[in-house]
Amino acid sequence: MIDYPALAALMAVIECRGFERAAQRLHISQSAVSQRIRQLEFRLGQPVLLRTNPPRPTELGQRLANHLQQVLQLEQGLLLDDEQAQTRLRIRLAVNADSLETWLAPALATAPEAQRMDFEMVVDDQDVGLRRMKNGEVMACICAAEQAVNGGLASFLGKLRYRALATPTFVERYQCGQALGQPQPDLAMIPSLIFNQDDHLQHRFLQTVNPQQPAPVYYHICPSAGGFIRMALAGLGYGMMPQIQVQEWLARGELVDIVPGYHLDVPLYWHYWQTESPLLKGLRKALTNSARAVLEP
Amino acid sequence: MIDYPALAALMAVIECRGFERAAQRLHISQSAVSQRIRQLEFRLGQPVLLRTNPPRPTELGQRLANHLQQVLQLEQGLLLDDEQAQTRLRIRLAVNADSLETWLAPALATAPEAQRMDFEMVVDDQDVGLRRMKNGEVMACICAAEQAVNGGLASFLGKLRYRALATPTFVERYQCGQALGQPQPDLAMIPSLIFNQDDHLQHRFLQTVNPQQPAPVYYHICPSAGGFIRMALAGLGYGMMPQIQVQEWLARGELVDIVPGYHLDVPLYWHYWQTESPLLKGLRKALTNSARAVLEP
Repeated sequence: MIDYPALAALMAVIECRGFERAAQRLHISQSAVSQRIRQLEFRLGQPVLLRTNPPRPTELGQRLANHLQQVLQLEQGLLLDDEQAQTRLRIRLAVNADSLETWLAPALATAPEAQRMDFEMVVDDQDVGLRRMKNGEVMACICAAEQAVNGGLASFLGKLRYRALATPTFVERYQCGQALGQPQPDLAMIPSLIFNQDDHLQHRFLQTVNPQQPAPVYYHICPSAGGFIRMALAGLGYGMMPQIQVQEWLARGELVDIVPGYHLDVPLYWHYWQTESPLLKGLRKALTNSARAVLEP
Repeated sequence: MIDYPALAALMAVIECRGFERAAQRLHISQSAVSQRIRQLEFRLGQPVLLRTNPPRPTELGQRLANHLQQVLQLEQGLLLDDEQAQTRLRIRLAVNADSLETWLAPALATAPEAQRMDFEMVVDDQDVGLRRMKNGEVMACICAAEQAVNGGLASFLGKLRYRALATPTFVERYQCGQALGQPQPDLAMIPSLIFNQDDHLQHRFLQTVNPQQPAPVYYHICPSAGGFIRMALAGLGYGMMPQIQVQEWLARGELVDIVPGYHLDVPLYWHYWQTESPLLKGLRKALTNSARAVLEP
């Protein structure tokens, strides 16, 4: 059996970012905190915590802290005395950047126990997100992959609709704006925006509308969703943006389609473990309902 | 002397994400591209390119590509024939996330040659940004450090003003909202938002208003500036946000101060090399002017 008081000490040090504050939170001495963690490391034969400032968990330490959170969540299902009801729970989620920028936060807030959850968002490409899930580093994952991991399930949330957008001035300067199916200029030569080197949306757009040259030749790289939109609004390039993120600019005509009629729907799935705690089940149901209202079916 | 045609081949492969498209861009055969790069590696005694899909530069390869960009920019100052005027230049900048989310893109667009630049944004903590600059991986860096690197200069841009904000409902639920200087509740116990583990703004806020407990105990982690604001708007926590990023919600009263009267100004500097090309000089002047209009003096 794992030494749970030691795990609680480990998690307190990580969350409070120090041994002294962890001791305060647990109402024990600082040396007791250190001793518990040393004993845990001795038993496991490897470190769980890097003694940096602030201390950081090793990969093993993170898995243990996450395991403790899952255990605490399961405990929630058993009993609800006063002390339990006071506990806040840390929920680590691997999510895609565009969900976090748009629909996810209001959806999380609708979960029954949302006010008692501390969310920790890990933003990754989808392959990395699913790997983190397999490693037990996160409790759930939102990504475009339909295939569940071993021991896990995947629930469809909806589709995030992307459109290739730029300012009207930009469209005029580069003489694009022809509807889908019409002859197009060489769109790969028109400055575009990509999020990072792993972002393939721009390529998927070009594969459809510009198949003879499906890779962008001139492009800006902007690994910040807000910055991405600002760069488009500043007329520096065109890019693939989630429609729900840019509604106000679309409504005001400040962003328009590069190829009217084109859009790309990216499906999103909630990946979770079959051994789902009641708390995470509540979160999943709330998210699924909220997603249905904002995403494409 | 460095083999510049080989560097041009290297940069084309990186930018076009493949040997075949690089060959098309350079109007040479694909085997000529491969041979130039192999010869470059043979001469340097180490690889410049990882043969992944898409190919990626090694650290040395990135430095060489960046050097080529600087040389091309210097060439711009010499002559301006038709071919030169057609060339697009890649400008790699290390920037802080909040500048990218707010004032930076419209400021870049005011640079005289902005329409011929492909910007590549690298978002880092400031220490990493300056290290990238020293390594020659980026051409300039925007960060809070005043001290220039060896051989570089730092120019003051202005200060980004942060306020600790939440929804009115949140302020009411946690009974905060007392003005600066008044007795405060234990703000470290109220759920807050931090960007990542290297984000110290929340700690600096608590050091001022809550000195007996200067580290947040309960907090969400959200490494996405847009998501950060959405989480605050969803009532999940309070957080330090750039005032210029949330003006609309402040104006509508949807975000209010946790401690009215408190703000934190973070200075921003443009770090650049003494051997500045005319093109980058134009960019710096335009940025400095734009920054003056939106940042605090």
